[in-house]
Amino acid sequence: MPYRLILSIAALAAALLAAPAQAGIGAQVTNFTLANGLEVVVIPDHRAPVVTHMVWYKVGSADETPGKSGLAHFLEHLMFKGTAKNPLGRFSQVVATIGGQENAFTAADYTGYFQRVPRDELKQMMEFEADRMTGLVLTDDVVRPELNVVLEEHNMRVGNNPAARLGEQMDAALYLNHPYGRPVIGWRQEIEQLDREGALEFYRRFYTPNNAILVIAGDVTPEEARTLAQETFGQVPRVAEVKPRIRPQEPVQEAARTVTLADARVTQPSLSRYYLVPSSTSARPGESEALDVLAHILGRGENSRLYQVLVIGKGLAINAGASYDGIAVDHTRLSVYATPKPEVSLPQLEQAIDAVLADVVENGVTAEELERSKNRMIADAIYANDNQRALAQWYGAALATGASVEQVRTWPDRIRPVSAQAVQDAARRWLDKRHSVTGYLVKDTHAQEKRS
Amino acid sequence: MPYRLILSIAALAAALLAAPAQAGIGAQVTNFTLANGLEVVVIPDHRAPVVTHMVWYKVGSADETPGKSGLAHFLEHLMFKGTAKNPLGRFSQVVATIGGQENAFTAADYTGYFQRVPRDELKQMMEFEADRMTGLVLTDDVVRPELNVVLEEHNMRVGNNPAARLGEQMDAALYLNHPYGRPVIGWRQEIEQLDREGALEFYRRFYTPNNAILVIAGDVTPEEARTLAQETFGQVPRVAEVKPRIRPQEPVQEAARTVTLADARVTQPSLSRYYLVPSSTSARPGESEALDVLAHILGRGENSRLYQVLVIGKGLAINAGASYDGIAVDHTRLSVYATPKPEVSLPQLEQAIDAVLADVVENGVTAEELERSKNRMIADAIYANDNQRALAQWYGAALATGASVEQVRTWPDRIRPVSAQAVQDAARRWLDKRHSVTGYLVKDTHAQEKRS
Repeated sequence: MPYRLILSIAALAAALLAAPAQAGIGAQVTNFTLANGLEVVVIPDHRAPVVTHMVWYKVGSADETPGKSGLAHFLEHLMFKGTAKNPLGRFSQVVATIGGQENAFTAADYTGYFQRVPRDELKQMMEFEADRMTGLVLTDDVVRPELNVVLEEHNMRVGNNPAARLGEQMDAALYLNHPYGRPVIGWRQEIEQLDREGALEFYRRFYTPNNAILVIAGDVTPEEARTLAQETFGQVPRVAEVKPRIRPQEPVQEAARTVTLADARVTQPSLSRYYLVPSSTSARPGESEALDVLAHILGRGENSRLYQVLVIGKGLAINAGASYDGIAVDHTRLSVYATPKPEVSLPQLEQAIDAVLADVVENGVTAEELERSKNRMIADAIYANDNQRALAQWYGAALATGASVEQVRTWPDRIRPVSAQAVQDAARRWLDKRHSVTGYLVKDTHAQEKRS
Repeated sequence: MPYRLILSIAALAAALLAAPAQAGIGAQVTNFTLANGLEVVVIPDHRAPVVTHMVWYKVGSADETPGKSGLAHFLEHLMFKGTAKNPLGRFSQVVATIGGQENAFTAADYTGYFQRVPRDELKQMMEFEADRMTGLVLTDDVVRPELNVVLEEHNMRVGNNPAARLGEQMDAALYLNHPYGRPVIGWRQEIEQLDREGALEFYRRFYTPNNAILVIAGDVTPEEARTLAQETFGQVPRVAEVKPRIRPQEPVQEAARTVTLADARVTQPSLSRYYLVPSSTSARPGESEALDVLAHILGRGENSRLYQVLVIGKGLAINAGASYDGIAVDHTRLSVYATPKPEVSLPQLEQAIDAVLADVVENGVTAEELERSKNRMIADAIYANDNQRALAQWYGAALATGASVEQVRTWPDRIRPVSAQAVQDAARRWLDKRHSVTGYLVKDTHAQEKRS
């Protein structure tokens, strides 16, 4: 189950390939709140008799107690262990029997569960999800083996993946104080200590209708959705009150950092840089949109600055780009990355990247690239209307990190006015090496000693 | 009041200049525990009619709740604000009137208060300290101005001190998960939010006789000390039960880090490297002693490897050294540092440092330097017997971080058998760049933009 999912708005929308539909992002979206505090978002889409059903909890790895990293993700796994009413395996069996899809994901700020099923099965999915919102039953019999599954997932995703390990160590170096510095999957020595009691305590603290968002996209009307929600989730008691998500914030960062990971298994060296920047929730008005446009101009696709200069112009890199992880509660990352050609050294590549960034800081962006990028971003977002799951995902992630339905819907209206000056201002203010970490992934050519 | 005090055993002992006294470290030390849980250590020293009176609490910045950094240190300041019995100012006034000295200090693992007074005033000091152990009275009138004092201290010690700022950012990069990564004085934006309620909550949780150590050094017998302790501290109720100090530990560190701080006020560039290593409490048997000897051989004084090679031999540096912060609950730092001559670049200096370290890793240390270092370390420690305050400090810090009186007393007996092989093994295992951070302090020659 995917566990790392701080979303880039542009990247999310751009992953979609369908034709444009109506204007605006989810123009027909409606939302309401049940008496128990559950927020419901309905995104009608009647092109096919299917629905995407998602439950998002406003809890993720950044909400864990220090020393218990990995708990949010472990609980996500345990949520499949059954309830008194629906024992282990039944929910997934039903999804499979009706030809549905299901998945779950954990990120720093949220945990989500989804099914995509024929429309007539929607109510059944809602019953299952409502049941496990507060009815989870955990015994050591199921918890212990699942911990091994998670540890195996850690091996696969992190232990055996030098780039992922570098990413973890870069996050830890980027965040001096904020819990985004710890991996969503957890630090291995802490995952190993997770247990049933800790998981249940976390579950009882955060899994309650007033800390969740239900997103239904597909062949359903708002009225039907409301009735079904009332009949299912509406019966779930509000079992906990949840405090505001006030996490330790970053101090003023004043020292550029580097992290070097050398591993014999690296076949392709690479360079990446993370800048600490505001998210759509933590930014001042307009700032997040300017950062989004900036990242797009710098590094989205083959027309971007980095690609044009590093790959096409100077022939130093085989790939280069940038992205902005805007959907987050607190300050987040703007990433820049490049993969050198075989004969090019990382310092040489870094110098060229720095020149591209310095050029934007000093001279700004052109009217042409500004227009092209904004048009592409807005078009991508509008295409998102055609992808039921992507649209549901966007609303869910945005709402789970503090945005409103209205803010998602009107996102194009906030991108359109972004000026060249605003982009340059964002570059000048935020592409500051003092709040960055640069990561070098290199092939280790020495035999490394084993550490015990 | 000093706030950063992770102690180096060798550095502590070596600061002393007196002649050797009896063998062993505090051979006549006695200790006992009162019924309320207060541990008492008595270090007789009858050369002059004075006593050093110290109360150590087993709480420091590493025990703070994330987001409340600086609270242990702030409370240290607030402990001077008076009680119902002894209003604001009286305690310090009495100390001044009798010609005594007083101070207080906060570190990652402990907070301490001390007075040095004529022996006849000891009981009065004990009454004052016993009174404020649980009797502190705080009003907003005194708390708010003191917060400004602490913020001013932060300005002075950190804000206006580029080397200190680099040290903070290096600690944050060295510790990926452990609370030693945050500054003892706190992150400024969190200090600003500290308040009376938070300070009182912290006080009630950690200031209780069963979480404290009383150290009395000077012109007092164990019997007198016991009677006095019983009459004063013995009357303090055990007001809280304190949990074991289990902090989030470090994951496997696998990526070398660097931190660069550029500031216009830097007049002398420098380079330092922190390695994450076991402390005397977290190490396996013998490992901490080997690290202590290693640091001594590498960088204590003008006969050390680093000094001999960098300053004398190659003429690259005006100073160079190393130290080991062994007295700590959890894994700690072994630091290496050097200051280049004007024409020498930091990369050039780093290469020379790396060569010195690699030589010890590959070829070990000589019998001559091993003997010289151990003899010097033990002699320094024995000289400590002559410095009342240093000896009290050593016992207090060691006991506050999990050592026993016996462990301190027999420290020379554990240093003597350290072999050349053990030193080389320690170097090979722990001088591993993958668990290190290298800091560069450089003069900023560009006008820096102000960040808001």
